[in-house]
Amino acid sequence: LAERWAVIIAGGRGTRFWPLSRRTRPKQVLSLDGGPTLLERTITRLSPDIPPERVVVVTGPEMAASVRDLVPGSVVLVEPSGRNTAPAIALGAVEVRRRGGAAFAVLPADHVIGDEAAFRGALDLAFGEAAGGALLTLGVRPTRPETGFGWIEVGDGEGASRPVVRFVEKPALAVAESLLAGGRHLWNAGMFVWTVDALVAAFQAFMPGVAAALSDPLARWTEMEATSIDYGVLEKAPNVRVIPVDFGWSDVGSWSALPEVLPAREFGCGVGEVVAVRSTGNVVHAPGSLVALVGVDNLVVVQTPDAVLVARRDDAQSIRQILERLDALGLGHLT
Amino acid sequence: LAERWAVIIAGGRGTRFWPLSRRTRPKQVLSLDGGPTLLERTITRLSPDIPPERVVVVTGPEMAASVRDLVPGSVVLVEPSGRNTAPAIALGAVEVRRRGGAAFAVLPADHVIGDEAAFRGALDLAFGEAAGGALLTLGVRPTRPETGFGWIEVGDGEGASRPVVRFVEKPALAVAESLLAGGRHLWNAGMFVWTVDALVAAFQAFMPGVAAALSDPLARWTEMEATSIDYGVLEKAPNVRVIPVDFGWSDVGSWSALPEVLPAREFGCGVGEVVAVRSTGNVVHAPGSLVALVGVDNLVVVQTPDAVLVARRDDAQSIRQILERLDALGLGHLT
Repeated sequence: LAERWAVIIAGGRGTRFWPLSRRTRPKQVLSLDGGPTLLERTITRLSPDIPPERVVVVTGPEMAASVRDLVPGSVVLVEPSGRNTAPAIALGAVEVRRRGGAAFAVLPADHVIGDEAAFRGALDLAFGEAAGGALLTLGVRPTRPETGFGWIEVGDGEGASRPVVRFVEKPALAVAESLLAGGRHLWNAGMFVWTVDALVAAFQAFMPGVAAALSDPLARWTEMEATSIDYGVLEKAPNVRVIPVDFGWSDVGSWSALPEVLPAREFGCGVGEVVAVRSTGNVVHAPGSLVALVGVDNLVVVQTPDAVLVARRDDAQSIRQILERLDALGLGHLT
Repeated sequence: LAERWAVIIAGGRGTRFWPLSRRTRPKQVLSLDGGPTLLERTITRLSPDIPPERVVVVTGPEMAASVRDLVPGSVVLVEPSGRNTAPAIALGAVEVRRRGGAAFAVLPADHVIGDEAAFRGALDLAFGEAAGGALLTLGVRPTRPETGFGWIEVGDGEGASRPVVRFVEKPALAVAESLLAGGRHLWNAGMFVWTVDALVAAFQAFMPGVAAALSDPLARWTEMEATSIDYGVLEKAPNVRVIPVDFGWSDVGSWSALPEVLPAREFGCGVGEVVAVRSTGNVVHAPGSLVALVGVDNLVVVQTPDAVLVARRDDAQSIRQILERLDALGLGHLT
């Protein structure tokens, strides 16, 4: 099945993991658990079904150097500028076709998957279904009323994949709660499988700027609609199908989510040498330094060689404000 | 007045400022505010009345190297082992006498004094009073019902110094509150002034082991009573007098006390580059690293090259438990 390829979307900025993440070192090139980086794991979990030389990584100019160092066996493409996922996927599709690939999976570079065998099984199913011309999405069984994700309403049907009734953009909490309770919705995790031909046909139907630029996407980069593949293609195409999956997926969206991917320890969870007294529910990331906690609960503590973050765990999204202040203070080299 | 000397007691371990303080680097050799160390300031604030060459620093073997580096112009004596303040002061007294000094002040190495001119004025008064043979203490006007200090009850009298009625060891809170309200008590700050002759006479009367060892205190070190000068001499001698002082004194007993000696900043107070969002009442010491605070209040955050402390400010005394754990974990090199 040498025609099966993967396009890894590795352009994310990842401010939410500051100070570990920086402009030139976003989340996908980090190790959150002390092991290999998220990007490396994204590629290795595809083997042997899709070996590294059939993986195309699409990234941005700021982090291209970090990305290249991590994936010496794969193809790295650098977007001239960030234009959302549809142009990035188009760039990858053209490269896959040029190298003789017929179908490919689109996978985010910065997610965690617990059960890798189940993941590969789902991907195999999806490639099989996609061979008939459908646009396949992997839909994650929801475990909480998450307002930060898109949700997918699943239609009736038999077999491995189901038709998609509609996509629900990031819902309000009450809506998310009813979607969760209703049992007919899955999370859109940004994982797709299709043939190059089916994707090109969809671009021609719904994203004419992208379709026209396929002749030379880097040169015609700004002609492409700066839109997500979800909004530009999937919400409009009639041949979108979904495979329900359940393989321990997490997008690890912020420091607060680290307990989803790290084992529990007395003080909470973390990476590094931690000594704690009367402290619970904390998230610590300090591979290079001892961290001592005394009487503190539900904090995020991150140590890097030039910056230390101490944040309330339920306020971790405000890290963005720290970055704005640093830029305003002329300390942009720390962002 | 070349006969006036100072003996600086610089043997304290100072675990309460971990991780900045270590066994070999106790509080007195640290800079808490980013400027000179407490020991250096203790010596420079004596000039020009008592120049560095008439200062004897008594310290312990573990921190002797750090101390010597800081006070190249002074005499450094190393105690064979810690035996409380009376033997340390005896050691200093013998050295002062050997070098031709007649009277000396005893000063802790790790306190902060805001008004240095007032301090020198008080010291000058004390030397004048001590010339008559009295044992002079400087008594700090209390500002809070502190249970961690000894208190001094002041008797009636005229003039710069007053007789001491009694010493009150670390009182319970209710007692401290009544001492504060009564207005007849001062804090014992461990600052004394006397002639060598008066001190030797007191040792002969109340600490015979110390008196006998004065012939060669280092060789006869363990013959001396391992007792504080307060308990061994001052609580017993009839010729103890006190000078009330008010010169912005603080013993800076723990990280929690840093606001007494540092200017207030939006997030609390601290040393180093700190960027904060919705954070108040924190004590930060991180001269080598940016610290970012998000939504946290009343924490102590200390960064050093190999350890980070995050503690509740009102629980900072539990740092001792961290050190015990580190020793138990075989991480004693970090203590």
